[in-house]
Amino acid sequence: MAEARKFERVALIGLGLIGSSLARAIRMHGLAEAIVGCARSEATRATSMSLGFVDAVFADPAKAAAGAELVVLCTPLGAYADIAAAIGPGLAPGAIVTDVGSAKQCVIRDVGPHLPDGVHLVPGHPVAGTEHSGPEAGFAEMFEDRWCILTPPPETPEDATEAVAAMWRRCGMRVERMDPQHHDYVLAITSHVPHVIAYTIVSTALGLADETKSEVFKFSAGGFRDFTRIADSDPVMWRDVLLNNREPVLEMLSRFGEDLAALQRAIRWGEG
Amino acid sequence: MAEARKFERVALIGLGLIGSSLARAIRMHGLAEAIVGCARSEATRATSMSLGFVDAVFADPAKAAAGAELVVLCTPLGAYADIAAAIGPGLAPGAIVTDVGSAKQCVIRDVGPHLPDGVHLVPGHPVAGTEHSGPEAGFAEMFEDRWCILTPPPETPEDATEAVAAMWRRCGMRVERMDPQHHDYVLAITSHVPHVIAYTIVSTALGLADETKSEVFKFSAGGFRDFTRIADSDPVMWRDVLLNNREPVLEMLSRFGEDLAALQRAIRWGEG
Repeated sequence: MAEARKFERVALIGLGLIGSSLARAIRMHGLAEAIVGCARSEATRATSMSLGFVDAVFADPAKAAAGAELVVLCTPLGAYADIAAAIGPGLAPGAIVTDVGSAKQCVIRDVGPHLPDGVHLVPGHPVAGTEHSGPEAGFAEMFEDRWCILTPPPETPEDATEAVAAMWRRCGMRVERMDPQHHDYVLAITSHVPHVIAYTIVSTALGLADETKSEVFKFSAGGFRDFTRIADSDPVMWRDVLLNNREPVLEMLSRFGEDLAALQRAIRWGEG
Repeated sequence: MAEARKFERVALIGLGLIGSSLARAIRMHGLAEAIVGCARSEATRATSMSLGFVDAVFADPAKAAAGAELVVLCTPLGAYADIAAAIGPGLAPGAIVTDVGSAKQCVIRDVGPHLPDGVHLVPGHPVAGTEHSGPEAGFAEMFEDRWCILTPPPETPEDATEAVAAMWRRCGMRVERMDPQHHDYVLAITSHVPHVIAYTIVSTALGLADETKSEVFKFSAGGFRDFTRIADSDPVMWRDVLLNNREPVLEMLSRFGEDLAALQRAIRWGEG
């Protein structure tokens, strides 16, 4: 296992499924002297303290991030710009800002401009998760044997990117670097479009007459049950992913629509 | 556990995933004196004998079915009419013909007319399976805690339906009766349409440029991986299901297409 830097203070902004899992993993692997968290909801802050995976919690991201060597944004993507504007002024030179979001070009666009000189941005995407949400659903082993994709912009120094990579490797991940645009294109088809589709078909089923609907859920075997599970994950997180990765998602949905129309036609005309 | 009749001779026409699983379950629960199988492929016949879940195998369905008290069709739906025409003349009064197919109206249409008077048709659908195929992939526990739907036509006597129901219950299934048309409608959305969609999106991904394609499969997490698994199941079986349940599948695909277009529009225009 490669040596990973031990941070004095890591701030996790957002303590849901991924943020709380990362807090637990950082603690388990001894990657920080102090782990502080930030959550808007008082219930999440109380739960996080009582579960004990953070040393302190704040409602204000600026207070959580002040003095942190590493700040990890773990909220839905739509909150990044405001959070970056709030924390930017309090970050010391040499601090690193990273994130866990499912789209990456928008991070460079929304976070980059708010960071002062000498603060380094390393957009990251640990490709891991479950359909559950919230701080109780997290676990330290979530990242083991999964991929983490980092998309640093050209101005980010190598040692900042490597510090983030080393942290994820210690959490069990295989780390790759990728161009942010390419990341967003690949993830549109592996993750975002499948989610849209699963969500849509579950909605279609929910639109059926009541008696049929109850039977649909009762008799759902393999196929549909997988879709309901996929469609079950956090709606706000997903809304933000789709709105922030609009072009690749729409392009893939359009290709998918063409392919589906061709198959529909083949079924209608009885071609095998 | 309800008492189940012990059949003198059960004939399983088709020894793939479901047929070979049912053979194993019938043996495990002692539901037949003799289990005979039929498979077109010599390799399947040899494998089935060496795995030992049948007492005899035949290439000719008429020979397998002759003298059987219970015949279970376990081939793709497209083969039913020819098999029924072949086995019908050799069936004795009181024999029961059932099946395991994912669409049910077509069974009544394709099999019913070939059965002589006194032979009873009990179309059935054990809602169970995996993405694997072939006699090696089967296992006796496949049916445990899953639903089995029976769709007997009005002329089928109650004791024939009950004999099939009792067999499935002994295999661990919860048995329900349903109108065949309603079955086909419910299964279109719980199973057939999800399969079409999963198959289509995997095809869409396979149509991408080579470098992107390899990354799509490499980084496929939850969403897409579930789809590749669903899309992996037996293509001939699925072709026959879709062609034999055309109207409900096309209706559901059309509803799904409308719902997807609405969501696409919301993504394009940035509505949450």
